[in-house]
Amino acid sequence: MEKLTDGQIETALNSVPEWSEVGGEIQRTYQFADFNESMGFVNKIAKIAEDLQHHPDVLIRYNKVTLTLTTHDAGGITEKDFDLARKIDALLVTSKN
Amino acid sequence: MEKLTDGQIETALNSVPEWSEVGGEIQRTYQFADFNESMGFVNKIAKIAEDLQHHPDVLIRYNKVTLTLTTHDAGGITEKDFDLARKIDALLVTSKN
Repeated sequence: MEKLTDGQIETALNSVPEWSEVGGEIQRTYQFADFNESMGFVNKIAKIAEDLQHHPDVLIRYNKVTLTLTTHDAGGITEKDFDLARKIDALLVTSKN
Repeated sequence: MEKLTDGQIETALNSVPEWSEVGGEIQRTYQFADFNESMGFVNKIAKIAEDLQHHPDVLIRYNKVTLTLTTHDAGGITEKDFDLARKIDALLVTSKN
């Protein structure tokens, strides 16, 4: 899995517009009603992360959850990070419908 | 719930020696075998936090979980933070035995 170039990252971010690149990682903050809803979300993404064996850094601040993704083995952002980001965002769309 | 003085914080930290004071908050990082164990721990502390209606900031980095506690209403560290810290540490002792 190769580290993406800046141009590739820019293109890939179009597929997950709520995410942004921050110092070699991609990041998104989700907002929920309360801590309990945040935990529900974190447990769902934990399952996806285990399935893919690719784990985001997860910061829970009451009703806000910030996910930060990078591929440590590649020393930067790879397609693996965008794949996980897309799967997590899709989960959210599904759960809202 | 009143904000503790520096002296009171120092004394209270003796009851939870693995925690340290960092800029008006108390913090501890726990280490586990893997992401799955981290999630197990986070779900246990989530239950305690809901029971007490006092929620730590939770950062999960694969096998490491960092908890950060402060009492926003009081503008600093209160007995409520140490109460939660002690309950979480007690949980860990129990689960190891």
